Amino acid sequence: MENEIERLPILRIAHGNMSSTQDAVAREITLTVVLNNRNKADLLCSPSNLEYLAVGFFCSQGILKSKDEVRKIEFDRKEGVIYIETSGATGGFSSAEKGLLPHVPEPIMANHLKISPRQITSLMKNFMSRSSIFKATGGVHSVALCKGDDILIFSEDIGRHNAIDKVLGERLLKNIPLEECSIATTSRISSGMLLKIAQQNIPIIISKSAPTDLGVRLADAAGITLIGFARGERMNVYSHSWRVATNRET
Amino acid sequence: MENEIERLPILRIAHGNMSSTQDAVAREITLTVVLNNRNKADLLCSPSNLEYLAVGFFCSQGILKSKDEVRKIEFDRKEGVIYIETSGATGGFSSAEKGLLPHVPEPIMANHLKISPRQITSLMKNFMSRSSIFKATGGVHSVALCKGDDILIFSEDIGRHNAIDKVLGERLLKNIPLEECSIATTSRISSGMLLKIAQQNIPIIISKSAPTDLGVRLADAAGITLIGFARGERMNVYSHSWRVATNRET
Repeated sequence: MENEIERLPILRIAHGNMSSTQDAVAREITLTVVLNNRNKADLLCSPSNLEYLAVGFFCSQGILKSKDEVRKIEFDRKEGVIYIETSGATGGFSSAEKGLLPHVPEPIMANHLKISPRQITSLMKNFMSRSSIFKATGGVHSVALCKGDDILIFSEDIGRHNAIDKVLGERLLKNIPLEECSIATTSRISSGMLLKIAQQNIPIIISKSAPTDLGVRLADAAGITLIGFARGERMNVYSHSWRVATNRET
Repeated sequence: MENEIERLPILRIAHGNMSSTQDAVAREITLTVVLNNRNKADLLCSPSNLEYLAVGFFCSQGILKSKDEVRKIEFDRKEGVIYIETSGATGGFSSAEKGLLPHVPEPIMANHLKISPRQITSLMKNFMSRSSIFKATGGVHSVALCKGDDILIFSEDIGRHNAIDKVLGERLLKNIPLEECSIATTSRISSGMLLKIAQQNIPIIISKSAPTDLGVRLADAAGITLIGFARGERMNVYSHSWRVATNRET
């Protein structure tokens, strides 16, 4: 973690008093990710789990689908470039990358996973207590892959899209099945975040923050349960609330 | 403002009680911006001040520099496309767009603008009270162009980069000089935000949130005073603190 935080000299002002001190600031680095010397992107990100980020980035682009495709991951740390080689042909960048609204996958109504308000409260408490870099710097987003109220994978990044890509990359390389999983996040849920979840057929997303209307509409269309403002024992269910069982049922 | 907010049916859960109600959610739309039928980008954004967003987007790309260059702005509302025509040739997309770390402009040490902690407190109080969509939805970022503790331009958007581009676009079309101005924002300050400020030679940026280390380093190199965590009478000055005068001096 110390690699992800930088201590910088600051002038602190409080109620008219000034003092020279230090503050912990989230680090931000540049990373280039390359797939088969063909697809390339430059990212600004936190310096952790970078191989996962690279894999997850191409996974979210829809051009990397399973662990079996990955033949080699090479990290040139000096140049800040991660090269991924896959077996077989991969497609070009998806419309998501180009900013257009991508195709919404088939709805996953068939996934009957449920979660109770009590589990959500317990999960989010667990989730928020994990966010060490946020606690130190206030400058990052957290995302976790969860099962019930357990956290399977946890990541933090200065960018919310990177944070989820890190989770998706790690889960791809670890081959974790997703049918019984949910995503927890500190960040707002806009169309981009929602589409990454939908693409993976993950049936539940829980956020501490607000969704956008397009995020809600896409969740509705994709059959995903979207829970926002999950704070303590309060939460708003924006779509497919049938997955949120009362405590008695679970 | 009603155009920027959508009321959606939700299931609200609090302390085990469930109730069907409505929640105000920030709208998110897709917009295509085109410059001289040559440079094109697809944006996801809040549906306000879209002409300003289009102008500000190309301004931040460094390919639109003054109001005089703008010959025509045409908004095809049906297709969601804004066409901007300029006189004279414009450059291609900058490296910022491609995600690489762009060139830091000449430092603006010669700008001797000062601001007092009292002005910052007063400005941020004024600024935060303006954020009507955030208050309703919790889902947007605010950015303002300020002079002393006055707000000259205010914008909100689901994306922090859009929010600042809207401010920069409006200021370009209104020809407001920037030497005595500062930027106030609710959002975190990473390298991308900082570079947009630096490119406009704006000497002071004040945020309610955290900066990244790269944001601080670029502010330092560019001669910009970066103030973070400006909340009430508290704030952290991360770079060029000589511009933050004590109240007695101002």
